[in-house]
Amino acid sequence: MPGTVEPRLLRGLRDLMPAEMHARQWIIDTIRRVYENYGYVPLGTPALEFLDVLRGTAGEESEKQLFEVAGPEETRLGLRFDQTVALARVVAQYPDLPRPFRRYQVAPVWRCDNPYEKRGRFREFIQFDIDAVGVESELADVEMITAMCDVMSAFGAAGPTGRPLPFRVRVSSRRVLNLLLPYAGIAPERASDVFRVLDKLDKLGAEKVRLELTTGYKDESGSPVPGLGFSGAQVDRIERFLAIRAPRRDDVLAQLAELFRDVPGAAAELEPLARVSAQLRALGYGDEVVVYDVSIARGLAYYTGTVFETELRELPEFGSVCSGGRYDDLVWRFLGERVPAVGTSVGVDRLLVALTELDRIPPPARRKATAQVLVTTFDKNLMDDYVAMTYELRRAGINTELYLGTEKRVGKQIRYADQYDIPVVVVCGSDEKARGEVQLKDMSVGRRLTAEVKDRNQWRAERPGQFNVPRAELVPAVQRLLRTIAAERV
Amino acid sequence: MPGTVEPRLLRGLRDLMPAEMHARQWIIDTIRRVYENYGYVPLGTPALEFLDVLRGTAGEESEKQLFEVAGPEETRLGLRFDQTVALARVVAQYPDLPRPFRRYQVAPVWRCDNPYEKRGRFREFIQFDIDAVGVESELADVEMITAMCDVMSAFGAAGPTGRPLPFRVRVSSRRVLNLLLPYAGIAPERASDVFRVLDKLDKLGAEKVRLELTTGYKDESGSPVPGLGFSGAQVDRIERFLAIRAPRRDDVLAQLAELFRDVPGAAAELEPLARVSAQLRALGYGDEVVVYDVSIARGLAYYTGTVFETELRELPEFGSVCSGGRYDDLVWRFLGERVPAVGTSVGVDRLLVALTELDRIPPPARRKATAQVLVTTFDKNLMDDYVAMTYELRRAGINTELYLGTEKRVGKQIRYADQYDIPVVVVCGSDEKARGEVQLKDMSVGRRLTAEVKDRNQWRAERPGQFNVPRAELVPAVQRLLRTIAAERV
Repeated sequence: MPGTVEPRLLRGLRDLMPAEMHARQWIIDTIRRVYENYGYVPLGTPALEFLDVLRGTAGEESEKQLFEVAGPEETRLGLRFDQTVALARVVAQYPDLPRPFRRYQVAPVWRCDNPYEKRGRFREFIQFDIDAVGVESELADVEMITAMCDVMSAFGAAGPTGRPLPFRVRVSSRRVLNLLLPYAGIAPERASDVFRVLDKLDKLGAEKVRLELTTGYKDESGSPVPGLGFSGAQVDRIERFLAIRAPRRDDVLAQLAELFRDVPGAAAELEPLARVSAQLRALGYGDEVVVYDVSIARGLAYYTGTVFETELRELPEFGSVCSGGRYDDLVWRFLGERVPAVGTSVGVDRLLVALTELDRIPPPARRKATAQVLVTTFDKNLMDDYVAMTYELRRAGINTELYLGTEKRVGKQIRYADQYDIPVVVVCGSDEKARGEVQLKDMSVGRRLTAEVKDRNQWRAERPGQFNVPRAELVPAVQRLLRTIAAERV
Repeated sequence: MPGTVEPRLLRGLRDLMPAEMHARQWIIDTIRRVYENYGYVPLGTPALEFLDVLRGTAGEESEKQLFEVAGPEETRLGLRFDQTVALARVVAQYPDLPRPFRRYQVAPVWRCDNPYEKRGRFREFIQFDIDAVGVESELADVEMITAMCDVMSAFGAAGPTGRPLPFRVRVSSRRVLNLLLPYAGIAPERASDVFRVLDKLDKLGAEKVRLELTTGYKDESGSPVPGLGFSGAQVDRIERFLAIRAPRRDDVLAQLAELFRDVPGAAAELEPLARVSAQLRALGYGDEVVVYDVSIARGLAYYTGTVFETELRELPEFGSVCSGGRYDDLVWRFLGERVPAVGTSVGVDRLLVALTELDRIPPPARRKATAQVLVTTFDKNLMDDYVAMTYELRRAGINTELYLGTEKRVGKQIRYADQYDIPVVVVCGSDEKARGEVQLKDMSVGRRLTAEVKDRNQWRAERPGQFNVPRAELVPAVQRLLRTIAAERV
């Protein structure tokens, strides 16, 4: 009889098998190490928030992405779509929290949008955020940028090859974008319309953006995309702005100063970016890792100052794996108080897909097993011995599995160890028992036999892959074998 | 102007501040160490499942607790209320997964029931589960029980006092409960009704359970609770069964054998429990940590064999902090195949509340800060020096915060370090700068001054709590000071 319910998941959701879970945990631990080095402290908030708390912060786009939840007592709830809204709530709800409040939070978020799993876009995914709340100084922005660089560098250093992971943090500022408005003769109240369209530059390309800024166009399905009605001269100016590009940050700033030379107050608005760049240089973050790029606008409506995105240079099509910026008004809705803040968010699951595709997860971080030893159990009369050996190994700190499946034959049980990549197998039949011995199998030898070695007989003679030890020496013998395997792996 | 949205959470949801997050992480890490020692491997599944996948597994009670979620594309979703249903789905969905599949999963679950936060009952809480799927042998049950014991023992060993944490695993079996049916003349189809009522024994007490089994009664609000209509003689027999209690497992088994001596097949049904007890004893798990207790029935409908609960002996009113059992039919719904399995689940958040109430969280595991050093920033002219010192310390592996808040005065900045329990503060004004020095403040001295020391002047002379070091020796001096503080703490 077949089952009555089909086992399946919604598109954009996925299960992570042990090897992937280990890899994700390695990513999280690596990021956490960097962020704790910067002194950020952990915060936890529930996945469920009241709908009115979630709404009205992050712009229309994000609201459409809300998973709504029916709560008890007639309440309307939603799953968080980011961690910043909850942070703003926390800052508002606990007024005694000393500031700056510099917290990290690593937790899943949910977005009901179109998933693209091959590029690491899911409907449920883990974000690793840091935010500093109550910081006015642009040094806080510098710290965010260097922290992002340090995280990316850590993956290079910790990876299987030890070679750097090529990345680039692209930095811009809402305040620079704001200079575009007087320069191109755009009324301030149309700013968010313009920025929303500019934010699609990477996705749609220059031509469609130009059409959307002017007359509009028909998309692939034939639906009309309305134009914003700007003049050709205005769009020329917008395009001149977007054309600014240079490998050196100072050159970008010089081009901006030149472009905006007639805009009142432009020099003062560009000054902070110049200081940030100088600080970055002094700390060793050169033009090759942090670039100024005015074409990034960041989709979310709440950024007010510096914005940044991080791309993996070997996978630019993945988009940003770590983004953020300065948002000084997010707590306003709760407190009616302006609280300056800056933050950034790593897309852990996107990074997992990207680093996997780049083969950047070191083998120990993508192991299938936690067990170092499998104790086989093929002779019913010796079950008490198997149990005793297992607990002896465990109590010596060796992760050990006792085989309790349905396969009776030792060969099948050894195959099970192979399937789960358990490196050592203990075999004890009545012969071994009678001699007071146990057999240890080094599974890595078998694997190498298949993979590399032509002359099996010769190899077997040199490195047998299995040998007997006295029962009383089980623990130290396994410890020695595990050390040998670990040393060979390096 | 006040805010327009009230910052608040649904009852039963809560925020965890840094000290609590550290404590919870310590609990999770402690459990994970034990379970990896047993060779369990991590699995991740999404929080959102299709409603039909979640439904019809865990009995009426659990279904009422479902948080329903409106999905995209007209789908109906729900938040998982446990991790076992998702495990069953995974086993069904990936038929190539080698068995036994022994996985751990640590993740939040959601239950829309009545919270009682002081006793650690929340509407969103983390469970740490292990399950072994595809294991028939009762040795798998033994492993579950010893793993639970080892987890609880680990909290005693790792705790602030090092003294054991008194706990008790209460074990029973659905198969023993099934013997009650012929013994008390209860038709098999009424079994689940009876067990559901018996499961309320801890909560309601013997008298109300008796009434519910017979005539029914009116609860505190005056609502009628219908009776099941059993006779007095039948309930006498049920009570005789429930009265079985003994400190030694073998005595419980002897009493059961005596009670059920006229029930056909009873001896064979009791035999597994006798073997489990013998195995436990051989492995050193005596009657003081694992008791047989027929009064536990476990609320969820899916258990088919051994069931167990764990109580903290110093907090029996918290109920079970770790429970599970054998469930051989959970995959049936998906596959039409019977897959034997056994599992157990730690209520991490309940345990966090309990261990906090018992003062069992060691101080390093409930620290507020991750930063070991705060670099103060009170002289605007020296900002470059402050930044340089901060990154020097960080690059030496010392977690360091650069003060970037709005307080200008050094005293207020030091107070900030005190509020967040940052142990070392670096102070450098124009005087220190001129002399090529920096001042280090040992914050623990100040704290001890307030807490313990009567004669402040004498103490200050002996252990000044602040001293100057050459700027060039900042890093080694801070490392020395941190070692001193750590040594004093022990």
